[in-house]
Amino acid sequence: MDPERWGDPAAAAPLTPTARELVELAFGPAATTEPAPGPEQLPATRLDDAVLDGLRAVVGREHVLTDDEVRRRRTRGKSTPDLLRNRSGDFADAPDAVVRPGDHAEVAAVVAYAAEHRIAVVPFGGGTCVTGGLAARRDGFAGLVSLDLVRMKRLLDVDPVSMTATLEPGLRGPEAEALLAEHGLTLGHFPQSFEFATIGGFAATRSSGQASAGNGRFDAMVVGLTAATPSGDLRLGTAPASAAGPDLRQLLLGSEGTLGVITAVTVRVRPVPETTVHEGWRWPSFTAGVTALRTLAQAGLLPTVLRLSDENETAVNLADPDAIGGSGGQGGCLMITGYEGTPTAVTARRDAVTAVLSGLGGTGLGEQPGVAWERGRFGAPYLRDALLDAGVLVETLETATFWSRLDAVYDGVRAALDATLDGPMVLCHVSHVYETGASLYLTVAAKQGDDPVAQWQVAKTAASDAIVAAGATITHHHAVGTDHLPWYAEEIGPVGVQLLRAVKRSVDPVGVMNPGVLVP
Amino acid sequence: MDPERWGDPAAAAPLTPTARELVELAFGPAATTEPAPGPEQLPATRLDDAVLDGLRAVVGREHVLTDDEVRRRRTRGKSTPDLLRNRSGDFADAPDAVVRPGDHAEVAAVVAYAAEHRIAVVPFGGGTCVTGGLAARRDGFAGLVSLDLVRMKRLLDVDPVSMTATLEPGLRGPEAEALLAEHGLTLGHFPQSFEFATIGGFAATRSSGQASAGNGRFDAMVVGLTAATPSGDLRLGTAPASAAGPDLRQLLLGSEGTLGVITAVTVRVRPVPETTVHEGWRWPSFTAGVTALRTLAQAGLLPTVLRLSDENETAVNLADPDAIGGSGGQGGCLMITGYEGTPTAVTARRDAVTAVLSGLGGTGLGEQPGVAWERGRFGAPYLRDALLDAGVLVETLETATFWSRLDAVYDGVRAALDATLDGPMVLCHVSHVYETGASLYLTVAAKQGDDPVAQWQVAKTAASDAIVAAGATITHHHAVGTDHLPWYAEEIGPVGVQLLRAVKRSVDPVGVMNPGVLVP
Repeated sequence: MDPERWGDPAAAAPLTPTARELVELAFGPAATTEPAPGPEQLPATRLDDAVLDGLRAVVGREHVLTDDEVRRRRTRGKSTPDLLRNRSGDFADAPDAVVRPGDHAEVAAVVAYAAEHRIAVVPFGGGTCVTGGLAARRDGFAGLVSLDLVRMKRLLDVDPVSMTATLEPGLRGPEAEALLAEHGLTLGHFPQSFEFATIGGFAATRSSGQASAGNGRFDAMVVGLTAATPSGDLRLGTAPASAAGPDLRQLLLGSEGTLGVITAVTVRVRPVPETTVHEGWRWPSFTAGVTALRTLAQAGLLPTVLRLSDENETAVNLADPDAIGGSGGQGGCLMITGYEGTPTAVTARRDAVTAVLSGLGGTGLGEQPGVAWERGRFGAPYLRDALLDAGVLVETLETATFWSRLDAVYDGVRAALDATLDGPMVLCHVSHVYETGASLYLTVAAKQGDDPVAQWQVAKTAASDAIVAAGATITHHHAVGTDHLPWYAEEIGPVGVQLLRAVKRSVDPVGVMNPGVLVP
Repeated sequence: MDPERWGDPAAAAPLTPTARELVELAFGPAATTEPAPGPEQLPATRLDDAVLDGLRAVVGREHVLTDDEVRRRRTRGKSTPDLLRNRSGDFADAPDAVVRPGDHAEVAAVVAYAAEHRIAVVPFGGGTCVTGGLAARRDGFAGLVSLDLVRMKRLLDVDPVSMTATLEPGLRGPEAEALLAEHGLTLGHFPQSFEFATIGGFAATRSSGQASAGNGRFDAMVVGLTAATPSGDLRLGTAPASAAGPDLRQLLLGSEGTLGVITAVTVRVRPVPETTVHEGWRWPSFTAGVTALRTLAQAGLLPTVLRLSDENETAVNLADPDAIGGSGGQGGCLMITGYEGTPTAVTARRDAVTAVLSGLGGTGLGEQPGVAWERGRFGAPYLRDALLDAGVLVETLETATFWSRLDAVYDGVRAALDATLDGPMVLCHVSHVYETGASLYLTVAAKQGDDPVAQWQVAKTAASDAIVAAGATITHHHAVGTDHLPWYAEEIGPVGVQLLRAVKRSVDPVGVMNPGVLVP
């Protein structure tokens, strides 16, 4: 696994012939020559040697990096606009240095040093952000450092009685799972960014994984947190639940590096499942499938994995990148159900869910569609580069709301995209369900215009307006970053904004932590 | 139901002969004459007519009350020290007026007026607080008003698709259930204070009910909140879950009236259960029973109600107030399991739980102990007055921690109580379980000394020190109030305290909202 493979045109998987056919059917002849990369613009570091020496004194000379290649790779995230800017060679906003602390104490010292010297700090985990969360503001600061957590990859503690584990923030998904597997444990958190994204990032952005129906969102798994803020350390979490005031853990979760650096996360873990089964169901319509999701969620009968594609996504068969366009034209909507646990638990749950789904008019498709989904589950982001090469603009957006508003949000967002893009292909799935509501995840493709960044900006703005107008949240699991700021401010209202600013000022009075991100 | 019955000596149920025998066995001859109440001290209102007229202009003349009886009943909560102070006739800290707004706009106007005139505001729901949360600081303020939410009792909205309901804060437990029952719905939140406590109080204190195993804590039921703060309104909750920054709902939950007044709460509701079954299980030891609780929680096999008494509590049989002392001497520990839902769901869950409990060495006792528990489930607080009359000091305390620390917390707290009280009777149960940990709820009885308030203060301090020393939370569901302040400050640490103060200042710059409570 190459962490740079997402967004690296050279590493892009080519489009399959069926996928290319689909693209041409939708958008006309695909481009056959890749656009030449623009000339690379990467400014010299703005931090002078005296300041760099101060950082070197904290983390060691070899962990303060200023070479162009390292800085280039820490410049931004992995949204389509990010990839397009990379392609254009624009690295004007590269960090001035990449600093790699080795433990909590070094993080705390770097943060304190940065506050003292007015250096902006961008905590960096897997770099998979798709909402501009790594694009901190630099004006007013002596420079900007990327605080790379790559050296902090320890499993600090396992408590097999309480079924918790304490992990360092730099562990990528597979690394965390490998360490836990030595104890027979799993986190069970598998977002699409699983291969690259880190524990710290999962917490800081309230990540949600593909097994959220059974395992919960990442924020729901967290029972304890340690963070280094410019004002000192925060250590929270004495019990699974408490009536001791507001839950301050919930301020760090979703804080996106703006309050401090999360240096340890204590999470609820589970035994490695003995059995895993995925299967497919077909529904006559998205509406019928959504009713089935809601029925399961409200009956407390959730599988481990539960997702439903709308008619468009089912037709394109995005669930299985190798088979895109090969749906066989059966129509309707594809649902994937997955079960994990002991054989007894899996059988009991599967039987109960099967009875409900059959009773509601679903058609069981057996395990093949589930196997195909599981094989391709982390694959979609790899397609973007090939599609961009073929002249297709492709991006995703997501939201969540209560069940009664889901139709209106779905219709409103699709209308906004239709109105602002020329003949877009809009695919949608529900992949996270709750008793009271669910998420909507949309993949949008359109023929690239001359300025695809501006083209997407117009569409994204219209879609975001539609989301907020319908009373939904601006993001269910991609976080706020810089891209969602205006809509986030609207969502929490002026008093909410005031609260958030007060929280920020309290622990980061100089404002060096990821400035310009999250806090309106 | 008389909301004043808790703590009203005249309404105290007499001790049954068995209970009296038990008291005498433990603590020697019971007192036979009730202590004469002390002379009542209730100062005149400190608010002048001009200020009162301002409040009258907002809520109407008939909703600004200054007569002694009304002010006396809003003076404090229902902890044993509160009851003892009531008995002594000390109402020196009675509010200067009781103000009863009728809707959100009136609450907002009262709060704004109070900030303008520097009047301390204590939001008042059921008055069942046992941690000094109604004992706000008055110095530095022109006066103190009790903001009584008794007129705000509407069911504002029902969303049967999303399975949510929006309730006003003044609804007591049974009132909320009655309104929801008209729609076939239930909240399923049954704390011991259910009869008197209110929706607003449940949210502001992170209440936890006896059916928490199946229905969750109150804070986990909340999907939306509206509050009136001195800086303006907060309206939060666009989705069941979101990655849009820190979860600001989690700042209002547990805020105990210190940030503003919660004026509407949107909660997840469920269908009124078709079937309810409670049954009893006997375990050879508390340790064996705790292992069984943990096994169920970690297998995801929780009944709706799940509680376990230790050997002492089982012997006293506190679960059934009418049968106290009538345990029949079978020893061991009593567990209560309860199941609610459709007949199919109840049978499936009950069978699965029964298999686990039988496999772990539990002895099924059938439904009789469950029926007895259900009958007496709200009864324990009524006993306090009879026990106080009999010369027994009785009080409760509670905490929660991770499973691996539960033994140490249990031992530590009991040792602290043994060391600071003369031959106390200490009973304990676990009534809230999570995958990673559980609560401990202790009932303490001892022979009253000359100054029972001071006597309890010494014991409570030692128990609280033991809780924090063992790494547990100072409160699982009684909140912080004023009684838990020093330990709460220790629990969240200096940066946590700083954060909380910043949050408070942000929405309540003058500091009129429940001053002295919660915020260290």
